[in-house]
Amino acid sequence: MSQIMSRRDLEFLLFEWLDTERLFERTRYAEHSRDVVEDLLGLAERIATDHFAPHNRAADLAEPRFDGERVELVPEVEPALRAFADAGFLAAPLSEEAGGLQLPSSVFGACMAWFHAANVGTAGYALLTLANANLLTVHATPELVGLFVEPMTTGRFFGTMALSEPHAGSNLADITTRAEPQPDGTYRLFGRKMWISGGDHEMGDNIVHLVLARTPDAPLGTRGISLFLVPKYLVDEDGTVGERNDVVLAGINHKMGFRGTVNTAPIFGDGAFTPGGRPGAVGHLVGTEHRGLPAMFTMMNEARIGVGLGATALGYTGYLKSLAYARERLQGRPLGASPESPQVPLVEHPDVRRMLLAQKSYVEGALALNLYCSRLVDDIASLDDAAVTAEAEKLLGVLTPIAKSWPSQWCLAANDLAIQVLGGAGYTRDHDVEQHYRDNRLNAIHEGTHGIQGLDLLGRKVLMDAGAGLSLLVGRIHETARRASGTGDADGERYAAQLAAAAERLVEVTGAIATRGDQQAMLADATAYLEAAGHLVVAWLWLEQWLVADGKEGVFYDGKRSATAYFFGRELPKIAPMLDLLADGDRTTLDLDPGVL
Amino acid sequence: MSQIMSRRDLEFLLFEWLDTERLFERTRYAEHSRDVVEDLLGLAERIATDHFAPHNRAADLAEPRFDGERVELVPEVEPALRAFADAGFLAAPLSEEAGGLQLPSSVFGACMAWFHAANVGTAGYALLTLANANLLTVHATPELVGLFVEPMTTGRFFGTMALSEPHAGSNLADITTRAEPQPDGTYRLFGRKMWISGGDHEMGDNIVHLVLARTPDAPLGTRGISLFLVPKYLVDEDGTVGERNDVVLAGINHKMGFRGTVNTAPIFGDGAFTPGGRPGAVGHLVGTEHRGLPAMFTMMNEARIGVGLGATALGYTGYLKSLAYARERLQGRPLGASPESPQVPLVEHPDVRRMLLAQKSYVEGALALNLYCSRLVDDIASLDDAAVTAEAEKLLGVLTPIAKSWPSQWCLAANDLAIQVLGGAGYTRDHDVEQHYRDNRLNAIHEGTHGIQGLDLLGRKVLMDAGAGLSLLVGRIHETARRASGTGDADGERYAAQLAAAAERLVEVTGAIATRGDQQAMLADATAYLEAAGHLVVAWLWLEQWLVADGKEGVFYDGKRSATAYFFGRELPKIAPMLDLLADGDRTTLDLDPGVL
Repeated sequence: MSQIMSRRDLEFLLFEWLDTERLFERTRYAEHSRDVVEDLLGLAERIATDHFAPHNRAADLAEPRFDGERVELVPEVEPALRAFADAGFLAAPLSEEAGGLQLPSSVFGACMAWFHAANVGTAGYALLTLANANLLTVHATPELVGLFVEPMTTGRFFGTMALSEPHAGSNLADITTRAEPQPDGTYRLFGRKMWISGGDHEMGDNIVHLVLARTPDAPLGTRGISLFLVPKYLVDEDGTVGERNDVVLAGINHKMGFRGTVNTAPIFGDGAFTPGGRPGAVGHLVGTEHRGLPAMFTMMNEARIGVGLGATALGYTGYLKSLAYARERLQGRPLGASPESPQVPLVEHPDVRRMLLAQKSYVEGALALNLYCSRLVDDIASLDDAAVTAEAEKLLGVLTPIAKSWPSQWCLAANDLAIQVLGGAGYTRDHDVEQHYRDNRLNAIHEGTHGIQGLDLLGRKVLMDAGAGLSLLVGRIHETARRASGTGDADGERYAAQLAAAAERLVEVTGAIATRGDQQAMLADATAYLEAAGHLVVAWLWLEQWLVADGKEGVFYDGKRSATAYFFGRELPKIAPMLDLLADGDRTTLDLDPGVL
Repeated sequence: MSQIMSRRDLEFLLFEWLDTERLFERTRYAEHSRDVVEDLLGLAERIATDHFAPHNRAADLAEPRFDGERVELVPEVEPALRAFADAGFLAAPLSEEAGGLQLPSSVFGACMAWFHAANVGTAGYALLTLANANLLTVHATPELVGLFVEPMTTGRFFGTMALSEPHAGSNLADITTRAEPQPDGTYRLFGRKMWISGGDHEMGDNIVHLVLARTPDAPLGTRGISLFLVPKYLVDEDGTVGERNDVVLAGINHKMGFRGTVNTAPIFGDGAFTPGGRPGAVGHLVGTEHRGLPAMFTMMNEARIGVGLGATALGYTGYLKSLAYARERLQGRPLGASPESPQVPLVEHPDVRRMLLAQKSYVEGALALNLYCSRLVDDIASLDDAAVTAEAEKLLGVLTPIAKSWPSQWCLAANDLAIQVLGGAGYTRDHDVEQHYRDNRLNAIHEGTHGIQGLDLLGRKVLMDAGAGLSLLVGRIHETARRASGTGDADGERYAAQLAAAAERLVEVTGAIATRGDQQAMLADATAYLEAAGHLVVAWLWLEQWLVADGKEGVFYDGKRSATAYFFGRELPKIAPMLDLLADGDRTTLDLDPGVL
C-alpha cells in the first residue's frame, strides 16, 4: 500500500461522501465521469510515485543554489514537472476557453494531494503556475491570456506570484514597487520583492511574474495597488520568446524546509538588463489600475485551500509512514509480559496507537475539510441557481481561513507525532518524517499567517457579515447533527448532542464578541476564535464521515468510526476553555504593556 | 541585553525565590557565597557569549563528518570546551573528594542554562562528560575514579553514556552487548550500540564510554544488565594514555537538529583494534554485576532535569530573540489607522503580544520548574534530617518526569511561536529561531521519550507509591495557594482557588485511575496524565513567582504578574478536558484494533 496518500480515502471522500458523480450531470463537468476521475487519480499516484517522490530528499539535501546569475535546481525537478504537464495536470482545472480540461476543483485537489505528499517542493512550481494561469484567465485581456496562459498549461512557461516586499510582508498596503505607464500601453516596473517562490530558475522557456505595484499618484494603502504581468523574457505578438526583461535576483532565501521550491528576492528595473534599450521591467496591466489586490484575491480562496491541502498531504504521508514503521518495528513488550516473550511491534503499545489515531483524526479530518471547500468551489462554478451559489460563496468564505490554518496547525502536529512514533530514527534524515515536519512548518506562514487567517475569519467573514456566513455554517452543522441523532445509534446521538452544543456555544460567544464595542477588543483573540471554530468544523466533518460509514462493515469504516470517537472524545472538548476565554473577553494580551516582556 | 538568557530572571529565581543563600549555611556548600554565584553566572554568560554562541550556526551547517576512521567537528568546538573546562565548570558540580567544587546543582543549572541556550550542540559534550564523571564518583572504585574522573573534570577526557542498541531503544531490557570476564578482573565487550552522542571525536586525549552489557549467563531482562567503563584508549595504572581499545564506529547519524553533538553507532570488540594482541573491547566493571541499570539510573533524575533544562534554555533564547525582533521590526498598523500613519513595531499587534507572552509563560515557568528540582537535589545532598531528605526525594521523583517532559513539549511550542513572530524570516536560516526549533525537537525523544515519562510518572511515581509522592506535591500546592489567598489580593485569591481546585481534581482523577483494576487500563493514558500534571505544576510555580513579585514594583515584576495571568487564564484551563478523559477511563486507544489504522 502506498505510503504517499490513501487512494481508498480519497475515493471514499469523493464518491461515498461528496457524491462527486452528481457533478458530471452539470453542464460544466459533463465531459467527465467517475471513470475519468479514477483514471486521473491513478495517474496522479503513478507520476507522484515515480517522478516526484524519488527526489524529495535529494531536493532537500541539495537545495537550490544561486551563483549570482542562475538558479540551479536538482536535475530531477524539471522532468518531474514535464511528466506532470504531459499528463495534463497543468491544464486540468482551467476552463475550456482557456485551453483547460475544466476538471472539478475537488477532483483536482484529490489528485494534487498525491503530488504535495510525494514532494511538496517540486509540486510548488506547479501550484504557482496553476494559480497564475487561473488568475490570468479571469482578469487578463484575451491577448495576454493567449500569449501567456497556453504555454503555462503545457509547462513551457512557469508562473510566480510577486506580492511581498522586504518591508511589507503581511502588510501589503505598504508596497512601494512602482509601475510607470508607457506610451505604448505597457508599464515599466521598478522595485524589490521578497519571499517570491519560484522567482527564478532555468526550467521551461519563460517565467511569468504577477507583480503588485503602484502607479504614479496612486492612493496610499491597499486601494492604490495594481497588478502587472512581468515576464522574465519578453514575448512577441506571435508568441516568440525574445529579449531578457529587467528582472534579476538580489539573492535567494535559505529555509528550514520546503527547500525544493526556490525562494527568491527579485529586483525589478535596476538596469541589469535593458529591454528596448533602457532599464525598467516591462509589465502589462492585468485588470484595471488600483484594483490589483482584489484581482489577486480572486484566487485567494483557492490558493489558501491549496496551502491547506499541501499541509494536509504532508501530514497524511507522515501518518502513513509512521503507521508502516509502527507495524514493523519490534520494540518492548506489553506491560507485565515476561522478558522471554518476543518483542512486539510498536503499534501494540497503547500510547503509540494513540499517536497514530490522533494523526489519523487530524489528517483525514483535514482532507475532508479541504475537499469539502473545493466542492463548494465546484458548486459555485457549476450551479445556475444564484441563491444557492451565493450561499456556497458565503460558506466558502467562512471556511477558507479554516481550510488554510487548521491543516497548517494540526497536520504539523501530526508530523510531530510521526517523528515521535519513530523515536530517534524519526529525528534522523534516514526517514522522511523529519523533512515533512520541517516542510510543513511553512504553511502557517505563507499565503497569510495564522494570525491573518484569524482576523479574516472573525473580522471579515463573521463580524463584517453580521454572522450570516456563520449562521449558514451552524445550520449545516445542526443538519448533520440531526441526521446523526436520527440514526438511533448511541454513539451518533452522543456525537450529535456534543456537536450541536459546541456550535451553539460558538454562536453565543460570537454574540458576546460582537457586542464588545471597539474593534481591538473584538479582534484581540481572533486566533483563539479561529482555532475553536476550526475544531468545531473538523468535528462536524468527522460526524459527516461517521454517517457515511454508518452501517458499513470492514476495517476501513471501523477506522472512520475510531477516528470519529477520538476526535469527539479528545479533540472537540479542547475548545471549551478557548470559548470561555472569548466569552469573558480576557484583555491580558490586549492591554499588555510591551515593556514588561 | 543578552538574547541568550536573562541573568535577571536567573537571579530572581535563585535569590528572590529559592533563597539560595540559605544553602551556603550548610556544611556541603559552606565554601560558596552569593558573590561566588554571581561571579560564576557572569563567567557563564561571558564564556557562553564569547565561545559558545558564535559557532552555534556553523556547527549546524557543517555537521560532524565521519570519514570511516575519524569524526571531524568544526574547529570552534574544542576551544569552547577548553574555555568551559578552564573556568572550572567541568568540575563544578562534583564533590570535593572527586576533585570537584561541590557547587549546588541549582546554581550549576543556572550557569548551564547559558551554555545550552548559546549552543546546545557544543554543550552536549560537556553535559555527557559531567554525567559520566558524576556517575563514576558514586559507583566506580576509587582506582577508576582516580584514573578517569580527574581527567574529565579538566576536559582532558570526554565521556559518553552508551545504553541503546539498534534493536533496543526505549526498551533496554533487550540489549545484547556481551561482556566476558577476564582472568585479570577486566572484561572484554562485544556488541553494537546506537544513538550514542559524542561517541567519537578527536577532542582531548580519550573518551570514556559507560556501556550497558550482559555478562554470560546473566538473567534476561533489565535485571541481567551490568555497567562497564570502556575507554577509547587504554590507560595505564599511572594514568598514561596508551593503546587503542577495540571500539570503532559503524557510522554516524544525521539528525534534523542538535547537529553539533555527533551521534554515533559504535561497535565494541569487532577486532578493528586488538588491545593486548586480541579482539574485544577492554572494559572495567562499574558497581556490581547485574546492577548496571540501577547504577545508570542513579543519575537519571539529574540527567532528565538536565534535558529539561536544555529544552528550557532553547525556548528561552528563542523567546528573547523573537521579542527583540518584534520590538524592532516595523510591520502594519493598529486596526483602523490611516495608511499615512507610520508602520508600527510588531509588538504593537495584540496577536504578536499573545505569542510573546505565551512564550514567556512557558520558558520562565519551565526554568522555575528545572531550578526547583535542582534545589531538591541540593536539599537531598546537604540536609541532615533524614525525614526531610526522604520527602525531598519523593517529591523529586514525582517532579522529574515533568521537569524533563514539560519543557520538551512547551519550550518547543515556544520555539514554534518564535518562528511565527518572525514570519517568513523566522523560517530562514538567517535567524536562529528555526535552529532552536529543530534542536529542541530532540528533547522529547532522548533520555526517555515523552511516553516513557508518562509511564514513569503515573505507573512508578504515583501508583506504585500509592500516591504518597503525589500527596506531598499536592500538599505543597495547597500551601502556596493558602499563601496566595492570604495576600488579600483579588488576583491572588482567584489564582489560589483555581489552583487548589485543579490539584483536588488531579487527586480525584488519580483515585479513579487507581481503582481501574488492570495495569493496561490504568496506564493507557499516562501521557495525558503527565501533561495535565505538568500544567498543574507549572501553574503552581507561576503562583510561587507571583507571590515573590507581590508588592514589588517595576517592569520585571509586572512581567511576572502578566505571565501568571496568562498561564492561569489560558493554560491551566486546558487540563480540564484531559482530566475528564482520565476520569472517564476512555478506552478508545486502548481497545483500538491496529488493523483499522
